[in-house]
Amino acid sequence: MKSARQLWEVYRQTLSVVPELGLSIDTSRMDLPESLAESLPGLADRIARAHREMAAVERGDRVNSDEDRMVGHYWLRAPELAPTPEIRRAIEETVVRVKRFAGEVHVGKVRGERATFTDVLVVGIGGSALGPQFVAQALASAADPMRTHFIDNTDPDGIDRVFTRLGDGIERTLTVVISKSGGTKETRNGMLEAGARYRAAGLAFARHAIAVTGDGSELDRTAAAEGWIDRFPMWDWVGGRTSELSAVGLLPAALAGFDVDGLLAGARTCDVATRREGGPLLANPALALALSWYVAGDGRGTKDMVILPYKDRLELLSKYLQQLVMESLGKERDRDGNVVHQGIAVYGNKGSTDQHAYVQQLRDGVQNFFVTFVEVLRDRAGRSPEVEEGVTSGDFLSGFLQGTRRALYENGRGSITITIPTVEARTIGALIALYERAVGFYAAMVNVNAYHQPGVESGKRAAGAVIALQRSILGALRVRTGSALTVEEMAGAIGAPDEAEVVLKILEHLAANPDHGVRASGSGPFDRRYAIDSPSV
Amino acid sequence: MKSARQLWEVYRQTLSVVPELGLSIDTSRMDLPESLAESLPGLADRIARAHREMAAVERGDRVNSDEDRMVGHYWLRAPELAPTPEIRRAIEETVVRVKRFAGEVHVGKVRGERATFTDVLVVGIGGSALGPQFVAQALASAADPMRTHFIDNTDPDGIDRVFTRLGDGIERTLTVVISKSGGTKETRNGMLEAGARYRAAGLAFARHAIAVTGDGSELDRTAAAEGWIDRFPMWDWVGGRTSELSAVGLLPAALAGFDVDGLLAGARTCDVATRREGGPLLANPALALALSWYVAGDGRGTKDMVILPYKDRLELLSKYLQQLVMESLGKERDRDGNVVHQGIAVYGNKGSTDQHAYVQQLRDGVQNFFVTFVEVLRDRAGRSPEVEEGVTSGDFLSGFLQGTRRALYENGRGSITITIPTVEARTIGALIALYERAVGFYAAMVNVNAYHQPGVESGKRAAGAVIALQRSILGALRVRTGSALTVEEMAGAIGAPDEAEVVLKILEHLAANPDHGVRASGSGPFDRRYAIDSPSV
Repeated sequence: MKSARQLWEVYRQTLSVVPELGLSIDTSRMDLPESLAESLPGLADRIARAHREMAAVERGDRVNSDEDRMVGHYWLRAPELAPTPEIRRAIEETVVRVKRFAGEVHVGKVRGERATFTDVLVVGIGGSALGPQFVAQALASAADPMRTHFIDNTDPDGIDRVFTRLGDGIERTLTVVISKSGGTKETRNGMLEAGARYRAAGLAFARHAIAVTGDGSELDRTAAAEGWIDRFPMWDWVGGRTSELSAVGLLPAALAGFDVDGLLAGARTCDVATRREGGPLLANPALALALSWYVAGDGRGTKDMVILPYKDRLELLSKYLQQLVMESLGKERDRDGNVVHQGIAVYGNKGSTDQHAYVQQLRDGVQNFFVTFVEVLRDRAGRSPEVEEGVTSGDFLSGFLQGTRRALYENGRGSITITIPTVEARTIGALIALYERAVGFYAAMVNVNAYHQPGVESGKRAAGAVIALQRSILGALRVRTGSALTVEEMAGAIGAPDEAEVVLKILEHLAANPDHGVRASGSGPFDRRYAIDSPSV
Repeated sequence: MKSARQLWEVYRQTLSVVPELGLSIDTSRMDLPESLAESLPGLADRIARAHREMAAVERGDRVNSDEDRMVGHYWLRAPELAPTPEIRRAIEETVVRVKRFAGEVHVGKVRGERATFTDVLVVGIGGSALGPQFVAQALASAADPMRTHFIDNTDPDGIDRVFTRLGDGIERTLTVVISKSGGTKETRNGMLEAGARYRAAGLAFARHAIAVTGDGSELDRTAAAEGWIDRFPMWDWVGGRTSELSAVGLLPAALAGFDVDGLLAGARTCDVATRREGGPLLANPALALALSWYVAGDGRGTKDMVILPYKDRLELLSKYLQQLVMESLGKERDRDGNVVHQGIAVYGNKGSTDQHAYVQQLRDGVQNFFVTFVEVLRDRAGRSPEVEEGVTSGDFLSGFLQGTRRALYENGRGSITITIPTVEARTIGALIALYERAVGFYAAMVNVNAYHQPGVESGKRAAGAVIALQRSILGALRVRTGSALTVEEMAGAIGAPDEAEVVLKILEHLAANPDHGVRASGSGPFDRRYAIDSPSV
């Protein structure tokens, strides 16, 4: 542990600054070794590999080798770097189209069947929701031309709540369905439920819907066939979790009235700074992050990443980074096929609020984390009243951040501090770019493919098997109308005696809802009997 | 790893059920040893200690020994258990008063200066916000008599956003200031900023404010002196993180129109089930949780607790539990004074959404967690449309939960599944009670005091020191009006040369905001000079 004076010296020597953005990264409280590259065996090679891989990413190599895909999110804000003129043109045209479309919506040139649009409903999940949600939470203001809502799950009650909130406003609501593959079930379900709501309101869904999806996807074909208002592209060289600066994020942002050019410019400026090779290692802000993570977690993710922005607008940053970091780094095998079980767990909400929730554990408890503080210098748009003589609410917020990181450091808990001058489109774009690059660097350092997600499929397949079992169960109940079966009888009846537990869960769920006419009788989960109502004639 | 058939057998034998609530806890996928109590050295003793300590808690021993306090949250829903008639009466009277007060607000008998109340603004943080937020998110519906808003931080911009949203509705807004000690700075700041807003709208704050606070606290005295509408008690025998079923949670709930009696009844019923001693260990639902945590994390918190409710309404459960679990268990020392660094890290949001965020890492990546799935059987209030032939959105939600826990288990990742029939006041009260007891059991098993938070003070003290430094800096600038100092010059000028970094952060923050008239000139964080405007005459 360093004294305050020593910390100040390290701070002076190692602060990573992007002057054009007013962004800085302070890693002094991570207690990184002085000759960092030489401090750990092989680290210099890992850093060199990170730069090599990043260069390969940016020149269009198929770095996502398992899926044989290019990784092009850096081109989105620097189209001149794109490997082909076609890709460059596609990026540039999309930005122009997004801004033009939003402008036409705002002036009422593009409008719904009965009214101009005042609300946007984004239907998407994962990479098609977390970026737009983070940006909307960060940048929304009362002066925006449109308000944004989200359906990001297949929870029927959750969907109902969104439409209850919209109420009659559904006629003023433009629905943006976002799905790269067009096959994501949650999004498909949200789209179908939304369609039913528009129809119930006497409105043609197609005249209130736009799609952001891959060319030729199921969603693309639906939108084309039904004559939706418009379609915007997703490309196979942009992954979902790095798609915020493609149409996925830019379209909702432009509709909400946010500064799309600012988002792109901030990311572009940050990219220039994080692309830098040579010079002091920590001078590259993304490398400063990646190296801090590496040293803190031993290159094996032994420490969780706690994200604590001291600003309400940034409350969703941790959720956004959960996906970006965990889905990118959480891998079973490295690029050479060795089983490594990599990853870094990410959580957090905001300060100083979280100080009253779990900083107790951070300071005193299990030492399995490091904190990333995000400091925003500007308190609010206007002036602040005093809450004590000569002190404002914002002075307290600032004091709590400093006090907490000191209290943690005194107990041997490390932290990074990221400082930005204000929350605006430019700095949000910069934060997104900063973490995209840091994750890319770290992945290369630990030798995993940051750009695929092979582990997600197994859950989807298993869910598909459950849905198939449900069909069998409903079929079996229908041919036995009038008789009631226990769980084990049903499991036997459908030829899946080993799947009794899945059968039980399906039957309990069916009986709790009126949709399929399944009823339960008797008590106790194992003795209960299930039957189906005769179909109404 | 067990086969599906073996899992079914374990499920049948060990499912923990509270029939009155329709609540069940399935720990089959935690792979607990068969003769659990004998499986780990000393575990039987730890379990016995957990029951002993719980009995001591409930009979009113000063179990929070460091603070010499009783721990009485179980009495809140069973006042007849209270150790004195005075405490019993205080609990019962408060529930009556809360319900009566809310009723009077709803019928307009208690009203604001210019209008009846339609909105509630809760000003509180930590234990005075997380419970009310969790319950509001879980139970709110469009038919509620009042809408609830929160100020849970000292972020000036965040406060502005709340009042912008309220707009002219401030005259219809009842502000509930919640702080046990009455000295929490964030809450005090929120209260003062709220007061300024009411005054700016030409309204007397006192006629729109109620306090929930300890008898004789700073807040209590302010509310009494200013003649606020009413005051409700907090007691020193209820900790902030277990205060949801005191006036802290019941008052906002009653104002919103939620079923306060249902919350209490659900907790009470759950308490009866979790109080049970004897019989199979896992038959006690809270013990089933505590033992699962203990085995999973080796009694040392080596595994994070990932909370995944498959229901949008329960999205804040993880945040609520972050406090309850981490602040209770995250302790440096055990009750005998040994340094133990205990705790369990908690995070999560909701399924199936999080499947598209970080289940990739959960399945394939670093094995440092176990999952708690929360299943809600009822999909929505009404009927569901089909999204595929014979399948609803809710069937998919249910299928995703099952598919994901299977995919995780196949890769050796354990999970608990909690099932409730529906999200309503009773089941929410039960979940709160369930986790309160589980945390109490676990703390006793690992021999830490679950009821204090000694580590929180150091950060507050350090923040106070920062505020004091800011005063010195402003003083030093004022006596040097016209001259501009660097950070190091200033640190020297105020006699704190070692605190140069804190001085830098304070100066950067001051210069970024107009409130104190501090200006920066020059570039680069270390060469920049700071001066103060001459005071306007």
